[in-house]
Amino acid sequence: MRITPTTELKNRFRVLQGRMQQLGVEAAILVQNSDLFYFTGSIQQGVYYLPVEGEPVYLVRKDFGRARMESGLKNILPLESLRNLPDQLQSMGLSLPETLGLELDVLPVLHYQRLEKLFSPAVMQDISPAVRSVRAIKSEYEISIMKDCALIMDRIFQHAPSVIAVGKTDIEVAAELECFARKEGHQGLIRFRGFNSEVFFGQVFSGTDSAIPAYLDTPLGGLGPNPAVGQGASYKKIAADEPFIIDLITAFDGYLVDQTRTMAVGKIPERLSDAYFAMLKIQEKLFQIARPGVSWGSVYEQCRQLAVELGYQDHFMGPTGAQVSFIGHGVGIEVDEYPLIARGFNDQLLEENMTFAFEPKAVFPGLGAVGVENTWRVSAEGIKRLTYSDESLLEL
Amino acid sequence: MRITPTTELKNRFRVLQGRMQQLGVEAAILVQNSDLFYFTGSIQQGVYYLPVEGEPVYLVRKDFGRARMESGLKNILPLESLRNLPDQLQSMGLSLPETLGLELDVLPVLHYQRLEKLFSPAVMQDISPAVRSVRAIKSEYEISIMKDCALIMDRIFQHAPSVIAVGKTDIEVAAELECFARKEGHQGLIRFRGFNSEVFFGQVFSGTDSAIPAYLDTPLGGLGPNPAVGQGASYKKIAADEPFIIDLITAFDGYLVDQTRTMAVGKIPERLSDAYFAMLKIQEKLFQIARPGVSWGSVYEQCRQLAVELGYQDHFMGPTGAQVSFIGHGVGIEVDEYPLIARGFNDQLLEENMTFAFEPKAVFPGLGAVGVENTWRVSAEGIKRLTYSDESLLEL
Repeated sequence: MRITPTTELKNRFRVLQGRMQQLGVEAAILVQNSDLFYFTGSIQQGVYYLPVEGEPVYLVRKDFGRARMESGLKNILPLESLRNLPDQLQSMGLSLPETLGLELDVLPVLHYQRLEKLFSPAVMQDISPAVRSVRAIKSEYEISIMKDCALIMDRIFQHAPSVIAVGKTDIEVAAELECFARKEGHQGLIRFRGFNSEVFFGQVFSGTDSAIPAYLDTPLGGLGPNPAVGQGASYKKIAADEPFIIDLITAFDGYLVDQTRTMAVGKIPERLSDAYFAMLKIQEKLFQIARPGVSWGSVYEQCRQLAVELGYQDHFMGPTGAQVSFIGHGVGIEVDEYPLIARGFNDQLLEENMTFAFEPKAVFPGLGAVGVENTWRVSAEGIKRLTYSDESLLEL
Repeated sequence: MRITPTTELKNRFRVLQGRMQQLGVEAAILVQNSDLFYFTGSIQQGVYYLPVEGEPVYLVRKDFGRARMESGLKNILPLESLRNLPDQLQSMGLSLPETLGLELDVLPVLHYQRLEKLFSPAVMQDISPAVRSVRAIKSEYEISIMKDCALIMDRIFQHAPSVIAVGKTDIEVAAELECFARKEGHQGLIRFRGFNSEVFFGQVFSGTDSAIPAYLDTPLGGLGPNPAVGQGASYKKIAADEPFIIDLITAFDGYLVDQTRTMAVGKIPERLSDAYFAMLKIQEKLFQIARPGVSWGSVYEQCRQLAVELGYQDHFMGPTGAQVSFIGHGVGIEVDEYPLIARGFNDQLLEENMTFAFEPKAVFPGLGAVGVENTWRVSAEGIKRLTYSDESLLEL
């Protein structure tokens, strides 16, 4: 169990203060779990108040003692009451801001309206793009945790062949892998930033189920156990001669990595194994072109173009009619961070120490899906692997 | 896998239309997963538009075909684009509302601002209290699913003694119970309505860890695997002669039940076993006083008063300094539904077919926690049990 070092927390708020200066935001209030964890090292509930200059204050409603234990920040105090927040800040010598940055992408309206009233006549501004872009650039400390995640991930995938068997259901396999993952250190909880987005360890599919589209913005969908979940593994039984695809997120000490591997139960159709090797080629393309200064959108376009050239236009990143317009997504504390290797992001550039998952996949309704996914780190010269499990099309 | 019957969906929107009439809300837009599931039978992403009179419309962005498969509603159409939503509604013969109800307790600000602009000059109103009060009264259909949850829950608790052993960690036991639960039908995902609230199956604690306070509004907290999770089971090893408390949520076909049982690994101190029997007495008190027409707050006060009389003032519902001001909470699709058996709710009354969990617990820092929890249904005459596992203080 790591406690985030104070130097980390300092570097993080100083970078955000730089963005706030540019935006003309005099103070920011952050309250969402992932942002709290990034800027305080804890998710004990309260308010992280960051003035554009000087030190931040972490005012904690529950549990204060625990926040003191988990956070390396200098100024941690009990939150008297949200109603008195402006008074409490002023009593600490802080002047109230005229422009206040809030996480408008995740903050529910009722919370917002309360803060807006409390800090009136301050102008509220969305600080979430700045927070997300700060969080997109990882420190060596963060990357070292993600490397630990990749170690756990590899153990899970080494274990997988021993639990997959004809006649078992996809959910049985998922349950056994989840249990193994937890014993290896997986924290269980996985965080999404997007509203209504939920994920439970990831996706485990045999054969046809992987081609069923679902509500989430993911290339594979899945029937899931019921319409209330509406995605992921179902009670489908594993048959011989079908692909088995495992797309898992490993979460450890607050950070995530994302990895997909495809296996063959028996002999899968050549069309599917060909598609798998094509997806590896698209990954190879990524490796050739991704480096600092290249736009997210251009990486997407070039890799998608290759998929089209290889003949997978109607299968790439989803079944026809439900194809998603991305191939990769940032990972860190959340599974939908920046950068987005997606259509249209032509002005946003890759930067050193961004980390992202890249997941070329091909979907064949009635047969199943194949693909590969790894989590990558942008380095000075190109990109480096964080996840590293064997990529051969394992025959079970 | 159940598909929600059309008659259910009709009854549900008609009750909400009645509330809307009283509130003067001409239309409601619901988008959050739990509300979508309740009113459409699906969580495929889109917009559920309910005029105060007439039939609702479910406009689906992704995946439309699947929404058609899962939802028994009459009017299901592809959502052209959110930008064109008002036009699309008008082209269907619907007039745009002057007052529009939205889920302001969960809707993020950016989503809200977009809808506000699209429907300008309509006045936005918070429809969430009405939605929550409609959802609080369960149908026989909903209760039948919750009874299935209780069956699965009982199997998990019958399995528990076989996986608890001195020397194992709490997380190992949790992982094995989670795996078993999934194989018995547990859907994995559990939904909270509250911002920042997360839960992963529940809590599994041996001895002292249960007394560590955490950020969530729960009587027990727990160290958890790391500060990013900050609650629940940790890597503490189970020792002899300490209490083992298991508080699990079982989720099946979209619905939940909540149950806690306490076991003794070896011999636990008499002080703790006495406290356990006191908690059973408080549950017995609940059974005597809870019935339609009694206020949520008065149930809370009477049960808390008994805890004080029995000598547990400083231990009841949390360790000193971190005691929570509730004993029970509604359960259904979410784990924080109405009613709240909590301080201050003196005007809200229990009604027939409300369902709630009641969890008297006593916490002893340095020793551990004991308690019991069941999920109950309010009947015409009193309350009836949904969960029913053996409540004896099992010695392992």
